[in-house]
Amino acid sequence: MSKKPSWVIDKERARRASAAETVWLFGIHAVRDALMNPARQKLRLVLTKNAFDRLEEAVTAAGLEPEIVDPRKFDVPIDPESVHQGAALEVKPLHWGSLAEVCAGGEGAPLVVLLDRVTDPHNVGAVLRSAEVFGARAVVAPHRHSAPETGALAKTASGALERQPYLRVQNLADAMEDLRGMGFTLLGLDGEAEATIGEALAEVGDRPVALVMGAEGPGLRDKTRETCDRLVRIPFRDSVGSLNVSNAAAIALYATAARG
Amino acid sequence: MSKKPSWVIDKERARRASAAETVWLFGIHAVRDALMNPARQKLRLVLTKNAFDRLEEAVTAAGLEPEIVDPRKFDVPIDPESVHQGAALEVKPLHWGSLAEVCAGGEGAPLVVLLDRVTDPHNVGAVLRSAEVFGARAVVAPHRHSAPETGALAKTASGALERQPYLRVQNLADAMEDLRGMGFTLLGLDGEAEATIGEALAEVGDRPVALVMGAEGPGLRDKTRETCDRLVRIPFRDSVGSLNVSNAAAIALYATAARG
Repeated sequence: MSKKPSWVIDKERARRASAAETVWLFGIHAVRDALMNPARQKLRLVLTKNAFDRLEEAVTAAGLEPEIVDPRKFDVPIDPESVHQGAALEVKPLHWGSLAEVCAGGEGAPLVVLLDRVTDPHNVGAVLRSAEVFGARAVVAPHRHSAPETGALAKTASGALERQPYLRVQNLADAMEDLRGMGFTLLGLDGEAEATIGEALAEVGDRPVALVMGAEGPGLRDKTRETCDRLVRIPFRDSVGSLNVSNAAAIALYATAARG
Repeated sequence: MSKKPSWVIDKERARRASAAETVWLFGIHAVRDALMNPARQKLRLVLTKNAFDRLEEAVTAAGLEPEIVDPRKFDVPIDPESVHQGAALEVKPLHWGSLAEVCAGGEGAPLVVLLDRVTDPHNVGAVLRSAEVFGARAVVAPHRHSAPETGALAKTASGALERQPYLRVQNLADAMEDLRGMGFTLLGLDGEAEATIGEALAEVGDRPVALVMGAEGPGLRDKTRETCDRLVRIPFRDSVGSLNVSNAAAIALYATAARG
Protein backbone atom coordinates (compact mmCIF):
# COMPACT_ATOMS: atom_id res chain seq x y z
CA MET A 1 0.00 0.00 0.00
CA SER A 2 1.38 3.38 -0.96
CA LYS A 3 2.07 5.81 1.83
CA LYS A 4 2.26 8.77 -0.53
CA PRO A 5 -0.50 11.33 -0.06
CA SER A 6 -2.83 11.65 -3.03
CA TRP A 7 -1.57 15.09 -4.03
CA VAL A 8 1.94 13.71 -4.43
CA ILE A 9 0.62 10.89 -6.59
CA ASP A 10 -1.32 13.42 -8.68
CA LYS A 11 1.76 15.58 -9.10
CA GLU A 12 3.91 12.63 -10.13
CA ARG A 13 1.28 11.51 -12.59
CA ALA A 14 1.11 14.99 -14.10
CA ARG A 15 4.90 15.05 -14.41
CA ARG A 16 4.94 11.66 -16.13
CA ALA A 17 2.17 12.77 -18.49
CA SER A 18 4.06 15.93 -19.32
CA ALA A 19 7.29 14.01 -19.94
CA ALA A 20 5.40 11.61 -22.21
CA GLU A 21 3.72 14.44 -24.14
CA THR A 22 4.86 14.74 -27.70
CA VAL A 23 3.64 16.76 -30.66
CA TRP A 24 3.61 15.89 -34.35
CA LEU A 25 4.58 18.88 -36.44
CA PHE A 26 3.87 18.69 -40.17
CA GLY A 27 4.35 20.62 -43.39
CA ILE A 28 7.66 21.59 -45.01
CA HIS A 29 8.00 24.98 -43.28
CA ALA A 30 7.06 23.90 -39.77
CA VAL A 31 9.29 20.81 -39.96
CA ARG A 32 12.23 22.79 -41.36
CA ASP A 33 11.91 25.46 -38.64
CA ALA A 34 11.81 22.80 -35.91
CA LEU A 35 14.77 20.91 -37.40
CA MET A 36 16.81 24.12 -37.42
CA ASN A 37 15.91 24.90 -33.80
CA PRO A 38 18.65 23.49 -31.50
CA ALA A 39 16.39 23.94 -28.45
CA ARG A 40 13.80 21.57 -29.93
CA GLN A 41 13.92 17.92 -28.79
CA LYS A 42 13.30 15.83 -31.90
CA LEU A 43 12.11 12.24 -31.72
CA ARG A 44 11.00 10.90 -35.10
CA LEU A 45 11.22 12.32 -38.59
CA VAL A 46 9.00 10.84 -41.31
CA LEU A 47 9.55 12.10 -44.87
CA THR A 48 8.66 11.20 -48.42
CA LYS A 49 11.61 11.14 -50.80
CA ASN A 50 10.37 14.38 -52.31
CA ALA A 51 10.11 16.12 -48.92
CA PHE A 52 13.57 14.81 -48.01
CA ASP A 53 15.01 16.47 -51.12
CA ARG A 54 13.48 19.78 -50.06
CA LEU A 55 14.62 19.44 -46.44
CA GLU A 56 17.99 17.76 -46.88
CA GLU A 57 20.02 20.68 -45.54
CA ALA A 58 17.90 21.00 -42.39
CA VAL A 59 17.90 17.22 -41.85
CA THR A 60 21.70 17.15 -42.04
CA ALA A 61 21.96 20.13 -39.67
CA ALA A 62 19.68 18.42 -37.16
CA GLY A 63 21.60 15.13 -37.34
CA LEU A 64 18.39 13.11 -37.18
CA GLU A 65 17.95 9.93 -39.23
CA PRO A 66 14.76 10.31 -41.31
CA GLU A 67 12.37 7.45 -42.07
CA ILE A 68 11.79 7.73 -45.82
CA VAL A 69 8.34 6.42 -46.70
CA ASP A 70 6.23 5.94 -49.79
CA PRO A 71 3.73 8.85 -50.15
CA ARG A 72 0.86 6.31 -50.16
CA LYS A 73 2.08 4.88 -46.84
CA PHE A 74 2.52 8.16 -44.98
CA ASP A 75 1.23 6.89 -41.66
CA VAL A 76 1.70 9.30 -38.75
CA PRO A 77 -0.84 10.23 -36.05
CA ILE A 78 -2.01 13.57 -37.49
CA ASP A 79 -5.43 14.68 -38.70
CA PRO A 80 -5.91 12.97 -42.09
CA GLU A 81 -7.00 16.33 -43.53
CA SER A 82 -3.69 17.96 -42.59
CA VAL A 83 -1.65 19.32 -45.49
CA HIS A 84 1.58 17.61 -44.42
CA GLN A 85 3.44 17.89 -47.75
CA GLY A 86 5.15 14.58 -46.98
CA ALA A 87 6.92 15.86 -43.87
CA ALA A 88 6.16 15.09 -40.21
CA LEU A 89 8.34 15.44 -37.13
CA GLU A 90 7.59 14.19 -33.63
CA VAL A 91 8.92 16.61 -31.02
CA LYS A 92 8.68 17.53 -27.36
CA PRO A 93 6.96 20.82 -26.49
CA LEU A 94 9.46 23.63 -25.95
CA HIS A 95 10.31 24.77 -22.45
CA TRP A 96 10.82 28.50 -22.26
CA GLY A 97 11.42 28.89 -18.54
CA SER A 98 9.34 30.66 -15.92
CA LEU A 99 7.18 33.73 -16.45
CA ALA A 100 9.73 35.85 -14.59
CA GLU A 101 12.66 34.47 -16.58
CA VAL A 102 10.95 35.25 -19.87
CA CYS A 103 9.15 38.51 -19.08
CA ALA A 104 11.10 40.45 -16.44
CA GLY A 105 14.08 42.76 -16.98
CA GLY A 106 16.02 43.09 -20.19
CA GLU A 107 16.14 46.02 -22.57
CA GLY A 108 13.34 48.13 -24.01
CA ALA A 109 9.75 48.36 -22.77
CA PRO A 110 8.65 44.74 -22.32
CA LEU A 111 5.40 43.71 -23.98
CA VAL A 112 3.42 40.54 -23.22
CA VAL A 113 0.16 39.09 -24.58
CA LEU A 114 -2.20 37.07 -22.35
CA LEU A 115 -4.92 34.93 -23.92
CA ASP A 116 -7.95 34.08 -21.79
CA ARG A 117 -9.30 30.78 -23.11
CA VAL A 118 -8.54 31.23 -26.78
CA THR A 119 -8.97 27.66 -27.94
CA ASP A 120 -8.69 27.89 -31.73
CA PRO A 121 -5.17 26.80 -32.79
CA HIS A 122 -5.28 28.95 -35.93
CA ASN A 123 -5.99 32.06 -33.91
CA VAL A 124 -3.24 31.31 -31.39
CA GLY A 125 -0.81 30.52 -34.22
CA ALA A 126 -1.57 33.87 -35.86
CA VAL A 127 -1.16 35.67 -32.51
CA LEU A 128 2.28 34.06 -32.08
CA ARG A 129 3.32 35.43 -35.50
CA SER A 130 2.21 38.95 -34.62
CA ALA A 131 3.73 38.72 -31.12
CA GLU A 132 7.10 37.82 -32.63
CA VAL A 133 7.00 40.63 -35.17
CA PHE A 134 6.22 43.24 -32.49
CA GLY A 135 8.84 41.87 -30.11
CA ALA A 136 6.53 40.53 -27.37
CA ARG A 137 8.40 38.68 -24.63
CA ALA A 138 5.76 35.98 -24.44
CA VAL A 139 2.25 34.86 -25.26
CA VAL A 140 0.79 33.54 -22.01
CA ALA A 141 -2.25 31.25 -21.74
CA PRO A 142 -3.73 28.99 -19.08
CA HIS A 143 -2.99 25.23 -19.30
CA ARG A 144 -6.66 24.42 -19.52
CA HIS A 145 -9.05 25.72 -22.18
CA SER A 146 -6.29 27.04 -24.44
CA ALA A 147 -5.01 25.80 -27.76
CA PRO A 148 -2.20 23.34 -27.03
CA GLU A 149 1.03 23.32 -28.99
CA THR A 150 -0.04 21.20 -31.97
CA GLY A 151 0.90 20.72 -35.60
CA ALA A 152 -2.05 22.89 -36.72
CA LEU A 153 -0.95 25.70 -34.42
CA ALA A 154 2.67 25.38 -35.58
CA LYS A 155 1.59 25.55 -39.22
CA THR A 156 -0.43 28.75 -38.72
CA ALA A 157 2.39 30.21 -36.64
CA SER A 158 4.59 29.80 -39.73
CA GLY A 159 7.83 29.30 -37.76
CA ALA A 160 7.00 31.61 -34.87
CA LEU A 161 6.29 28.66 -32.55
CA GLU A 162 10.02 27.86 -32.60
CA ARG A 163 11.04 31.40 -31.67
CA GLN A 164 8.19 33.09 -29.79
CA PRO A 165 7.76 31.95 -26.17
CA TYR A 166 4.28 30.46 -25.64
CA LEU A 167 3.90 29.96 -21.89
CA ARG A 168 1.13 27.87 -20.41
CA VAL A 169 0.37 28.77 -16.78
CA GLN A 170 -1.75 27.12 -14.12
CA ASN A 171 -3.83 30.20 -13.38
CA LEU A 172 -4.09 33.27 -15.57
CA ALA A 173 -5.09 35.70 -12.80
CA ASP A 174 -2.05 34.63 -10.75
CA ALA A 175 0.20 35.20 -13.76
CA MET A 176 -1.36 38.65 -14.18
CA GLU A 177 -0.57 39.49 -10.54
CA ASP A 178 3.00 38.28 -11.08
CA LEU A 179 3.35 40.51 -14.13
CA ARG A 180 1.97 43.48 -12.19
CA GLY A 181 4.66 42.75 -9.58
CA MET A 182 7.26 42.99 -12.37
CA GLY A 183 6.00 46.47 -13.26
CA PHE A 184 3.58 45.62 -16.08
CA THR A 185 0.41 47.61 -16.66
CA LEU A 186 -2.38 45.17 -17.55
CA LEU A 187 -4.66 46.41 -20.34
CA GLY A 188 -7.72 44.23 -20.96
CA LEU A 189 -9.31 44.43 -24.43
CA ASP A 190 -13.07 44.89 -24.11
CA GLY A 191 -15.39 46.26 -26.79
CA GLU A 192 -17.52 47.96 -24.10
CA ALA A 193 -14.64 49.86 -22.49
CA GLU A 194 -14.78 53.67 -22.37
CA ALA A 195 -11.12 54.39 -23.09
CA THR A 196 -9.57 53.62 -26.45
CA ILE A 197 -6.31 51.70 -26.49
CA GLY A 198 -4.58 54.81 -27.87
CA GLU A 199 -5.76 56.97 -24.96
CA ALA A 200 -4.70 54.40 -22.38
CA LEU A 201 -1.29 53.86 -23.98
CA ALA A 202 -0.61 57.61 -23.96
CA GLU A 203 -1.00 57.51 -20.18
CA VAL A 204 1.03 54.34 -19.70
CA GLY A 205 4.01 55.92 -21.46
CA ASP A 206 7.03 53.65 -21.75
CA ARG A 207 6.17 51.30 -18.89
CA PRO A 208 5.88 47.55 -19.62
CA VAL A 209 2.48 46.57 -21.03
CA ALA A 210 0.58 43.29 -20.85
CA LEU A 211 -2.32 43.02 -23.33
CA VAL A 212 -5.09 40.73 -22.13
CA MET A 213 -7.42 39.27 -24.76
CA GLY A 214 -10.49 37.05 -24.42
CA ALA A 215 -12.00 34.65 -26.92
CA GLU A 216 -14.49 35.88 -29.48
CA GLY A 217 -17.97 35.79 -28.03
CA PRO A 218 -17.37 35.22 -24.32
CA GLY A 219 -14.60 37.84 -24.10
CA LEU A 220 -12.69 38.18 -20.83
CA ARG A 221 -13.86 36.11 -17.86
CA ASP A 222 -15.00 38.15 -14.84
CA LYS A 223 -11.95 37.26 -12.77
CA THR A 224 -9.62 38.19 -15.64
CA ARG A 225 -11.43 41.47 -16.24
CA GLU A 226 -11.24 42.40 -12.55
CA THR A 227 -7.51 41.67 -12.47
CA CYS A 228 -6.75 44.14 -15.28
CA ASP A 229 -5.50 47.63 -14.45
CA ARG A 230 -7.61 49.10 -17.18
CA LEU A 231 -10.09 48.06 -19.85
CA VAL A 232 -9.58 49.47 -23.32
CA ARG A 233 -11.26 49.17 -26.68
CA ILE A 234 -10.13 49.34 -30.28
CA PRO A 235 -12.11 52.24 -31.75
CA PHE A 236 -14.45 51.07 -34.52
CA ARG A 237 -16.01 53.29 -37.16
CA ASP A 238 -18.93 50.95 -37.63
CA SER A 239 -21.14 49.57 -34.88
CA VAL A 240 -21.94 46.35 -36.77
CA GLY A 241 -19.45 43.53 -36.99
CA SER A 242 -16.49 42.52 -34.88
CA LEU A 243 -12.82 41.69 -35.24
CA ASN A 244 -11.34 38.24 -35.33
CA VAL A 245 -9.26 37.73 -32.13
CA SER A 246 -5.95 37.46 -33.96
CA ASN A 247 -6.68 40.68 -35.86
CA ALA A 248 -7.56 42.45 -32.61
CA ALA A 249 -4.30 41.18 -31.09
CA ALA A 250 -2.30 42.39 -34.11
CA ILE A 251 -3.80 45.87 -33.79
CA ALA A 252 -3.19 46.02 -30.03
CA LEU A 253 0.41 44.85 -30.47
CA TYR A 254 1.03 47.40 -33.24
CA ALA A 255 -0.49 50.23 -31.19
CA THR A 256 1.58 49.26 -28.14
CA ALA A 257 4.87 48.74 -30.00
CA ALA A 258 4.47 51.93 -32.06
CA ARG A 259 3.48 54.21 -29.14
CA GLY A 260 5.50 57.25 -28.24
CA MET B 1 -22.71 30.01 -89.54
CA SER B 2 -22.55 32.74 -86.95
CA LYS B 3 -21.61 36.19 -88.12
CA LYS B 4 -20.79 37.41 -84.63
CA PRO B 5 -17.10 38.20 -84.08
CA SER B 6 -15.38 35.93 -81.57
CA TRP B 7 -15.02 38.66 -78.92
CA VAL B 8 -18.79 39.13 -78.89
CA ILE B 9 -19.27 35.40 -78.47
CA ASP B 10 -16.74 35.38 -75.63
CA LYS B 11 -18.47 38.27 -73.93
CA GLU B 12 -21.89 36.63 -74.21
CA ARG B 13 -20.50 33.38 -72.89
CA ALA B 14 -18.97 35.20 -69.91
CA ARG B 15 -22.29 36.92 -69.22
CA ARG B 16 -24.18 33.63 -69.30
CA ALA B 17 -21.61 32.01 -67.01
CA SER B 18 -21.89 34.90 -64.58
CA ALA B 19 -25.70 34.69 -64.60
CA ALA B 20 -25.49 30.96 -63.92
CA GLU B 21 -22.99 31.40 -61.07
CA THR B 22 -24.33 30.47 -57.68
CA VAL B 23 -22.72 30.04 -54.28
CA TRP B 24 -23.55 27.60 -51.50
CA LEU B 25 -23.33 29.31 -48.11
CA PHE B 26 -23.28 27.09 -45.05
CA GLY B 27 -23.22 27.25 -41.26
CA ILE B 28 -25.91 28.72 -38.99
CA HIS B 29 -24.46 32.25 -38.84
CA ALA B 30 -23.65 32.65 -42.54
CA VAL B 31 -27.05 31.27 -43.56
CA ARG B 32 -28.92 33.43 -41.06
CA ASP B 33 -27.09 36.59 -42.20
CA ALA B 34 -27.84 35.82 -45.85
CA LEU B 35 -31.52 35.04 -45.11
CA MET B 36 -31.85 38.39 -43.33
CA ASN B 37 -30.25 40.27 -46.23
CA PRO B 38 -33.01 41.54 -48.58
CA ALA B 39 -30.42 42.29 -51.29
CA ARG B 40 -29.40 38.63 -51.43
CA GLN B 41 -31.01 36.48 -54.16
CA LYS B 42 -31.82 33.14 -52.51
CA LEU B 43 -32.36 29.99 -54.52
CA ARG B 44 -32.44 26.87 -52.34
CA LEU B 45 -32.42 26.38 -48.58
CA VAL B 46 -31.50 22.97 -47.16
CA LEU B 47 -31.85 22.49 -43.41
CA THR B 48 -31.93 19.73 -40.84
CA LYS B 49 -34.88 19.91 -38.45
CA ASN B 50 -32.50 21.08 -35.73
CA ALA B 51 -31.05 23.87 -37.89
CA PHE B 52 -34.58 24.91 -38.90
CA ASP B 53 -35.49 25.33 -35.23
CA ARG B 54 -32.51 27.63 -34.77
CA LEU B 55 -33.20 29.60 -37.95
CA GLU B 56 -37.01 29.66 -37.97
CA GLU B 57 -37.28 33.43 -37.51
CA ALA B 58 -34.86 34.19 -40.36
CA VAL B 59 -36.52 31.58 -42.62
CA THR B 60 -39.93 33.19 -42.04
CA ALA B 61 -38.50 36.66 -42.65
CA ALA B 62 -36.93 35.52 -45.92
CA GLY B 63 -40.15 33.84 -47.09
CA LEU B 64 -38.21 30.94 -48.57
CA GLU B 65 -39.53 27.36 -48.36
CA PRO B 66 -36.81 25.21 -46.74
CA GLU B 67 -36.09 21.60 -47.72
CA ILE B 68 -35.94 19.77 -44.39
CA VAL B 69 -33.59 16.79 -44.64
CA ASP B 70 -32.34 14.02 -42.43
CA PRO B 71 -28.86 14.88 -41.03
CA ARG B 72 -27.50 11.65 -42.57
CA LYS B 73 -28.78 12.71 -45.98
CA PHE B 74 -27.45 16.25 -46.01
CA ASP B 75 -26.47 16.29 -49.66
CA VAL B 76 -25.42 19.69 -51.00
CA PRO B 77 -22.41 20.50 -53.20
CA ILE B 78 -20.05 21.82 -50.51
CA ASP B 79 -16.67 20.52 -49.34
CA PRO B 80 -17.45 17.40 -47.23
CA GLU B 81 -15.14 18.77 -44.51
CA SER B 82 -17.22 21.95 -44.16
CA VAL B 83 -18.78 22.53 -40.76
CA HIS B 84 -22.26 23.22 -42.12
CA GLN B 85 -24.21 22.71 -38.87
CA GLY B 86 -27.13 21.36 -40.91
CA ALA B 87 -27.71 24.59 -42.79
CA ALA B 88 -26.92 25.40 -46.44
CA LEU B 89 -28.28 28.12 -48.70
CA GLU B 90 -27.74 28.50 -52.45
CA VAL B 91 -27.49 32.15 -53.42
CA LYS B 92 -26.37 34.47 -56.19
CA PRO B 93 -23.28 36.58 -55.60
CA LEU B 94 -24.13 40.09 -54.42
CA HIS B 95 -23.92 43.01 -56.83
CA TRP B 96 -22.65 46.13 -55.15
CA GLY B 97 -22.54 48.46 -58.12
CA SER B 98 -19.56 50.10 -59.81
CA LEU B 99 -16.32 51.17 -58.16
CA ALA B 100 -17.37 54.81 -58.47
CA GLU B 101 -20.84 54.15 -57.02
CA VAL B 102 -19.40 52.39 -53.99
CA CYS B 103 -16.21 54.39 -53.36
CA ALA B 104 -16.72 58.02 -54.49
CA GLY B 105 -18.35 60.84 -52.58
CA GLY B 106 -20.32 60.47 -49.37
CA GLU B 107 -19.41 61.58 -45.88
CA GLY B 108 -16.16 61.21 -43.97
CA ALA B 109 -12.74 60.34 -45.40
CA PRO B 110 -13.35 57.32 -47.64
CA LEU B 111 -11.17 54.27 -47.07
CA VAL B 112 -10.76 51.35 -49.48
CA VAL B 113 -8.72 48.12 -49.39
CA LEU B 114 -7.29 46.57 -52.58
CA LEU B 115 -6.06 42.99 -52.56
CA ASP B 116 -3.51 41.99 -55.20
CA ARG B 117 -3.98 38.25 -55.79
CA VAL B 118 -4.91 37.19 -52.27
CA THR B 119 -6.31 33.76 -53.01
CA ASP B 120 -6.92 32.26 -49.55
CA PRO B 121 -10.66 32.55 -48.73
CA HIS B 122 -9.97 32.62 -44.97
CA ASN B 123 -7.67 35.61 -45.36
CA VAL B 124 -10.12 37.48 -47.57
CA GLY B 125 -12.97 36.66 -45.17
CA ALA B 126 -10.98 38.07 -42.25
CA VAL B 127 -10.09 41.19 -44.25
CA LEU B 128 -13.82 41.75 -44.98
CA ARG B 129 -14.54 41.63 -41.22
CA SER B 130 -11.85 44.19 -40.45
CA ALA B 131 -12.85 46.36 -43.42
CA GLU B 132 -16.42 46.51 -42.12
CA VAL B 133 -15.35 47.38 -38.58
CA PHE B 134 -13.16 50.25 -39.77
CA GLY B 135 -15.78 51.54 -42.18
CA ALA B 136 -14.03 50.79 -45.48
CA ARG B 137 -16.17 51.54 -48.53
CA ALA B 138 -15.05 48.40 -50.31
CA VAL B 139 -12.57 45.58 -50.55
CA VAL B 140 -11.47 45.45 -54.19
CA ALA B 141 -9.82 42.47 -55.88
CA PRO B 142 -9.22 41.36 -59.47
CA HIS B 143 -11.60 38.79 -60.96
CA ARG B 144 -8.77 36.37 -61.61
CA HIS B 145 -6.40 35.01 -58.96
CA SER B 146 -8.51 36.18 -56.03
CA ALA B 147 -10.62 34.25 -53.56
CA PRO B 148 -14.14 34.03 -55.05
CA GLU B 149 -17.24 34.55 -52.95
CA THR B 150 -17.63 31.07 -51.48
CA GLY B 151 -19.11 29.42 -48.42
CA ALA B 152 -15.68 29.17 -46.78
CA LEU B 153 -15.07 32.88 -47.32
CA ALA B 154 -18.56 33.74 -46.01
CA LYS B 155 -17.99 31.66 -42.88
CA THR B 156 -14.67 33.36 -42.06
CA ALA B 157 -16.23 36.75 -42.82
CA SER B 158 -18.76 35.99 -40.06
CA GLY B 159 -21.59 37.99 -41.62
CA ALA B 160 -19.45 40.73 -43.13
CA LEU B 161 -19.88 39.30 -46.65
CA GLU B 162 -23.55 40.38 -46.53
CA ARG B 163 -22.69 43.94 -45.53
CA GLN B 164 -19.19 44.80 -46.71
CA PRO B 165 -18.86 45.46 -50.47
CA TYR B 166 -16.42 43.00 -52.06
CA LEU B 167 -15.84 44.23 -55.62
CA ARG B 168 -14.16 42.11 -58.25
CA VAL B 169 -12.63 44.16 -61.06
CA GLN B 170 -11.19 43.22 -64.43
CA ASN B 171 -7.87 44.94 -63.88
CA LEU B 172 -6.49 46.08 -60.52
CA ALA B 173 -4.16 48.78 -61.91
CA ASP B 174 -7.08 50.34 -63.83
CA ALA B 175 -9.17 50.36 -60.65
CA MET B 176 -6.27 52.04 -58.85
CA GLU B 177 -6.14 54.76 -61.52
CA ASP B 178 -9.91 55.23 -61.20
CA LEU B 179 -9.58 55.62 -57.43
CA ARG B 180 -6.77 58.14 -57.88
CA GLY B 181 -9.15 60.06 -60.15
CA MET B 182 -11.67 60.10 -57.30
CA GLY B 183 -9.08 61.73 -55.01
CA PHE B 184 -7.71 58.63 -53.27
CA THR B 185 -4.07 58.41 -52.22
CA LEU B 186 -2.84 54.88 -52.93
CA LEU B 187 -0.61 53.44 -50.20
CA GLY B 188 1.01 50.10 -51.06
CA LEU B 189 2.07 47.88 -48.13
CA ASP B 190 5.63 46.68 -48.66
CA GLY B 191 7.98 45.38 -45.97
CA GLU B 192 10.96 46.96 -47.73
CA ALA B 193 9.48 50.48 -47.89
CA GLU B 194 11.35 53.33 -46.21
CA ALA B 195 8.37 55.20 -44.79
CA THR B 196 6.24 53.73 -42.04
CA ILE B 197 2.49 53.76 -42.52
CA GLY B 198 2.19 56.22 -39.62
CA GLU B 199 4.59 58.69 -41.27
CA ALA B 200 2.80 58.47 -44.62
CA LEU B 201 -0.66 58.86 -43.05
CA ALA B 202 0.46 62.00 -41.20
CA GLU B 203 1.22 63.55 -44.60
CA VAL B 204 -1.95 62.31 -46.27
CA GLY B 205 -4.07 64.03 -43.63
CA ASP B 206 -7.80 63.54 -44.08
CA ARG B 207 -7.76 62.74 -47.81
CA PRO B 208 -9.30 59.46 -48.99
CA VAL B 209 -6.92 56.49 -48.65
CA ALA B 210 -6.71 53.23 -50.60
CA LEU B 211 -4.59 50.55 -48.92
CA VAL B 212 -3.04 48.12 -51.40
CA MET B 213 -1.97 44.70 -50.07
CA GLY B 214 -0.25 41.80 -51.80
CA ALA B 215 -0.34 38.13 -50.97
CA GLU B 216 2.10 36.67 -48.45
CA GLY B 217 5.29 35.73 -50.18
CA PRO B 218 4.98 37.33 -53.61
CA GLY B 219 3.78 40.67 -52.22
CA LEU B 220 2.64 43.34 -54.66
CA ARG B 221 3.12 42.67 -58.38
CA ASP B 222 5.44 45.12 -60.19
CA LYS B 223 2.60 46.83 -62.04
CA THR B 224 0.60 47.21 -58.80
CA ARG B 225 3.62 48.57 -56.95
CA GLU B 226 4.34 51.11 -59.69
CA THR B 227 0.73 52.33 -59.66
CA CYS B 228 0.84 53.19 -55.93
CA ASP B 229 1.43 56.77 -54.86
CA ARG B 230 3.63 55.62 -52.03
CA LEU B 231 5.00 52.43 -50.50
CA VAL B 232 4.75 52.10 -46.74
CA ARG B 233 5.68 49.50 -44.16
CA ILE B 234 4.29 48.44 -40.82
CA PRO B 235 7.19 49.01 -38.40
CA PHE B 236 8.38 45.76 -36.81
CA ARG B 237 10.45 45.47 -33.66
CA ASP B 238 11.88 42.16 -34.75
CA SER B 239 13.55 41.43 -38.07
CA VAL B 240 12.55 37.75 -38.04
CA GLY B 241 9.03 36.63 -38.88
CA SER B 242 6.21 38.22 -40.83
CA LEU B 243 2.55 39.10 -40.45
CA ASN B 244 -0.34 37.13 -41.84
CA VAL B 245 -1.98 39.22 -44.61
CA SER B 246 -5.26 39.65 -42.73
CA ASN B 247 -3.37 40.85 -39.64
CA ALA B 248 -1.39 43.33 -41.74
CA ALA B 249 -4.66 44.57 -43.27
CA ALA B 250 -6.24 44.95 -39.81
CA ILE B 251 -3.29 47.05 -38.62
CA ALA B 252 -3.29 49.23 -41.74
CA LEU B 253 -7.06 49.77 -41.46
CA TYR B 254 -6.77 50.67 -37.77
CA ALA B 255 -3.90 53.07 -38.41
CA THR B 256 -5.79 54.73 -41.25
CA ALA B 257 -9.16 54.96 -39.50
CA ALA B 258 -7.61 56.20 -36.23
CA ARG B 259 -5.35 58.86 -37.81
CA GLY B 260 -5.61 62.50 -36.88
